[in-house]
Amino acid sequence: MIKVSVLYPNRPGVRFDLGYYCDTHMALVRECLGRACLGIAVDQGLSAATPDAPAPFVAAGHLLFASVEAFQHSFAPHAERIMGDLANFTDAEPLVQISQVCLDA
Amino acid sequence: MIKVSVLYPNRPGVRFDLGYYCDTHMALVRECLGRACLGIAVDQGLSAATPDAPAPFVAAGHLLFASVEAFQHSFAPHAERIMGDLANFTDAEPLVQISQVCLDA
Repeated sequence: MIKVSVLYPNRPGVRFDLGYYCDTHMALVRECLGRACLGIAVDQGLSAATPDAPAPFVAAGHLLFASVEAFQHSFAPHAERIMGDLANFTDAEPLVQISQVCLDA
Repeated sequence: MIKVSVLYPNRPGVRFDLGYYCDTHMALVRECLGRACLGIAVDQGLSAATPDAPAPFVAAGHLLFASVEAFQHSFAPHAERIMGDLANFTDAEPLVQISQVCLDA
């Protein structure tokens, strides 16, 4: 299984509408990717290692797929629509990481 | 539920022993944190958004807890032992993020 993580860097004054992201954006993602997307998770950044240090990322979304190819084939036809929705909830420039899930227990 | 993510930045020549991390380090983490840790996941970085671009993080570990307090209380007594093990599998300086898990479906 592979995980596509979309990490939104934090900075003072960053705009991020978590409600829109979880409800509206992720509904769009589900609709576009269909059954190729095996799972969706959203994290809201609280802090760094200590509670007084700001979180490196204001939020992160993680999408699970059977393979990199399954992600690419489901995402490509909808890339413009999904990426075009970003401005509706954030002004952060996301960092994207594709990972192999080695352990999940 | 909260997630403690430990992200190991990628760079050319970075040292990261994934086998040691998954098997030996995570066994130590489980032993130290006990039942406070509700779940463990490990991701191995494959690439950025496109397969030819390097992954921002060579690997990442994610630990789930009921609350920030549950993490702090279980981790503090073992911090030195857990952090002291890092040199056994990597020379990367990890980035730590504590997040609220908003969605996991």
